[in-house]
Amino acid sequence: MTKVGVILSGCGYLDGAEIQEAVSALIALSQAGVAYRCLAPSKPLRVVDHLTGTQSDESRDVLTESARIARGEISDLAGVKGDQFDAFVLPGGFGVAKNLCTFAAEGPDCEVDPEVSRVLREAHAAGRPIGFACIAPALCAKVFGDQKPKLTIGHDAGTAGALESLGASHTPADVPEIVTDSANRFVSTPAYMEETNPADVFAGVSEMVRAVLAMVSESATA
Amino acid sequence: MTKVGVILSGCGYLDGAEIQEAVSALIALSQAGVAYRCLAPSKPLRVVDHLTGTQSDESRDVLTESARIARGEISDLAGVKGDQFDAFVLPGGFGVAKNLCTFAAEGPDCEVDPEVSRVLREAHAAGRPIGFACIAPALCAKVFGDQKPKLTIGHDAGTAGALESLGASHTPADVPEIVTDSANRFVSTPAYMEETNPADVFAGVSEMVRAVLAMVSESATA
Repeated sequence: MTKVGVILSGCGYLDGAEIQEAVSALIALSQAGVAYRCLAPSKPLRVVDHLTGTQSDESRDVLTESARIARGEISDLAGVKGDQFDAFVLPGGFGVAKNLCTFAAEGPDCEVDPEVSRVLREAHAAGRPIGFACIAPALCAKVFGDQKPKLTIGHDAGTAGALESLGASHTPADVPEIVTDSANRFVSTPAYMEETNPADVFAGVSEMVRAVLAMVSESATA
Repeated sequence: MTKVGVILSGCGYLDGAEIQEAVSALIALSQAGVAYRCLAPSKPLRVVDHLTGTQSDESRDVLTESARIARGEISDLAGVKGDQFDAFVLPGGFGVAKNLCTFAAEGPDCEVDPEVSRVLREAHAAGRPIGFACIAPALCAKVFGDQKPKLTIGHDAGTAGALESLGASHTPADVPEIVTDSANRFVSTPAYMEETNPADVFAGVSEMVRAVLAMVSESATA
């Protein structure tokens, strides 16, 4: 049975995973009848108050907060090998750019969490397709820039330029469109990088999940 | 334009709103093309670690944590009148039974948060339909027991008995079924009261939202 790893970065778009994108991915995987496991690194995140938008000094753990979305059914990324899942999906949210890498603060000069980088590289080396929503393509560009990945982050010119400076080829896209890189087996969709709504985010993330699962099926029959 | 209030109780099923149910409601409302506003009371909640399932001494605010699901687009329930929305939807999670009322600890003898009780009573008095997922029908039974509401919480005999002791009539249901009380304009669906999955939860909550919106349409043409 196909099993997909869903890499989360917390719980809440300002300091963690974008919740609607993450749940959209879980619904789409569940609708497709495939198994999934949520995964996250255990490390501190700096809390942002989602009512006021203000940064606080409070610290929470990325894995522990991600467990809220996963209903506790989640594993520490440190114990995961990139080839043990048939595919990976990364919802967006600032957590990707703050906790999985430092793109939010440092742009193209960012560092990537070593466990995230390791798992994604192992997955890619094993031919596993990977789906990226929202800002997650920035992480993809940082890790796989030398593979010249074809990606979208929607229409934000500044972020698109940052991705291209890392070696990526950027294609503008609307929600719920996807951009597919067949050679690298990457699929991306803008989601909340654009001004949008839960229905269209669900449609885009679902389309991304379908494209990723189609790549898994191709592998199985190749 | 139809506008629906979505009453949240935090962010995470062990101490707040069940995230997948809440997002399912937002997607379904968005797919139906109706406007919605997330609402929650501002009050302390006791944090449960969702990785280990253990209660902690940490306190967070229900409204502030609910804002994570709502992407900050949320209002304090204290400023809401029950007739200012065309309908209300309450996702489940232990937050309903810990933060909106005290059913988790006290069962049928529970107290209901006064703002929650006020808004629901105003809404019901104004003929507004209300949808309840998961454990939220227990709150309905406590507030509206004298109206003999027809509800479901799935198949849990103990909880069903508690609802009946409050005056409700309980109908067992599977996920993604709904139970409709046309006289009271209540719709309920078991969601994560049962062992289920994100796809079926989304289907059940979507069906509940459709039934609630159908009642809104009936009102408009009556």
